[in-house]
Amino acid sequence: MKPHAFDAALALDPVAPGRYAGRTSEAYWNMVGPFGGCTAATVLKAVLSHPDLLGTPLSITVNYAGALAQGPFEVQLLPVRTNRSTQHWTAAIVQDDAQGQPVVATTATVITAVRRETWSLSDLPMPVVPRPPEAQAMRYDKAMAWLDHYELRPVSGLIPQAWDGRQHDHSVSQLWMRDQPPRPLDFCSLLALSDIFYPRVWLRRATRVPAGTVSITTYFHAGEKELQATGSGYLLGQARGQEFRNGFFDQSAQLWNEAGTLLCTSHQIVYFKE
Amino acid sequence: MKPHAFDAALALDPVAPGRYAGRTSEAYWNMVGPFGGCTAATVLKAVLSHPDLLGTPLSITVNYAGALAQGPFEVQLLPVRTNRSTQHWTAAIVQDDAQGQPVVATTATVITAVRRETWSLSDLPMPVVPRPPEAQAMRYDKAMAWLDHYELRPVSGLIPQAWDGRQHDHSVSQLWMRDQPPRPLDFCSLLALSDIFYPRVWLRRATRVPAGTVSITTYFHAGEKELQATGSGYLLGQARGQEFRNGFFDQSAQLWNEAGTLLCTSHQIVYFKE
Repeated sequence: MKPHAFDAALALDPVAPGRYAGRTSEAYWNMVGPFGGCTAATVLKAVLSHPDLLGTPLSITVNYAGALAQGPFEVQLLPVRTNRSTQHWTAAIVQDDAQGQPVVATTATVITAVRRETWSLSDLPMPVVPRPPEAQAMRYDKAMAWLDHYELRPVSGLIPQAWDGRQHDHSVSQLWMRDQPPRPLDFCSLLALSDIFYPRVWLRRATRVPAGTVSITTYFHAGEKELQATGSGYLLGQARGQEFRNGFFDQSAQLWNEAGTLLCTSHQIVYFKE
Repeated sequence: MKPHAFDAALALDPVAPGRYAGRTSEAYWNMVGPFGGCTAATVLKAVLSHPDLLGTPLSITVNYAGALAQGPFEVQLLPVRTNRSTQHWTAAIVQDDAQGQPVVATTATVITAVRRETWSLSDLPMPVVPRPPEAQAMRYDKAMAWLDHYELRPVSGLIPQAWDGRQHDHSVSQLWMRDQPPRPLDFCSLLALSDIFYPRVWLRRATRVPAGTVSITTYFHAGEKELQATGSGYLLGQARGQEFRNGFFDQSAQLWNEAGTLLCTSHQIVYFKE
């Protein structure tokens, strides 16, 4: 059976301890590099493949230092410190430049943790929105390959239909989403989904200025149990901008499953051009 | 003139390119290590001291892999990649263990950027709260040295006065704050202030369970101009928990100056014990 495009994109070959060879995916290509969520997921995939791994993902920060070029790359990993129940990783994605010199395209830190059941509570109940079948699947021009691999059903804050520069009164978007074709949720696909929102500055300004994520941080609230309970169902994603200032803005996002369980929260700082 | 305790705590000696010797501060001591905001500020101080620095802080992620012991440490820095207007740093704080072996206590990534004036807008107006003189300065037992160096004027979500386990109906706190004695705001002190909030789990549960930050990410919206406009005035800080689950919760925070300018947003994932 042909693997899911997402699994193919994340395929890594161990070449030495803590070094994994990969290749950029045409299927998840964005405009000048891979979809950032796919790049982040590739780092996480390497961590989850490492023989010394302790626990499941708790936190990841990925810094996009430069665009990955089409072709091979290497993920380099170090389990810097392993405690009783947490493990701290540093990571980088490195690619050879035209002169064959290795260049860091991405830096990252990852924390994994052994989690035990404790008192738990959500302070962010899932917003009440129409259910997935009532939300119309998004249709978009096929400019970006990666969008073909997601089913997106916006319920509010749709991408502006007219780039008329009319300032919108908020920057909140809500949408149902899942892999296309459906694929059982795992930590890597959850991470990729946390980066799915288009730049908040486009919504706020109705102006399609160049914009790109500089750094993303995702916190995992889900463990294996919550992933299994989600299966290949939809996630409700919500994203909102906080401050747009002097070339950068930050946006915060939450992802719930259909049962209303908050699976992860995510934050990013994004470059935009005037 | 005696330097401010915060400047003394952040004193670093360059010992080699990208290596800075420091020493933990008794003044900013928490329970089992330094106040995490002070540790984060120390990393940022090293970056800002580096001769190759480009721009001002945009984003920092600090991962607390282990508690710093009282005594000397070294900040190790690498400007991994410098682009036209952004610069990506990796950093670590290293301390010798009892056997004289270097151990990583903290990992971090930092992004600095040259920022230009652009279209700007805030999607998070400052909440309407009583002004600093109307908010009573917090009085607390002197269990933690670092609290002596901050003036905290809570306006809502005070630390529970009774640890009676009565579940609170939200996890939001708002307070005015500044260095004590007052000190003109800079990037390092702003970063430290972004970590000032007590663990949200204490408020939500009115139970003082052991808790500690595992990773913090702060996005800087302020540049030099906004710092200067703030001076040694108060900042309004607001923090809120999002999800408490299986030993960890995340909290998000915003810090405005008295004029209502959002200076930074911050997120952290925090360990708590049942």
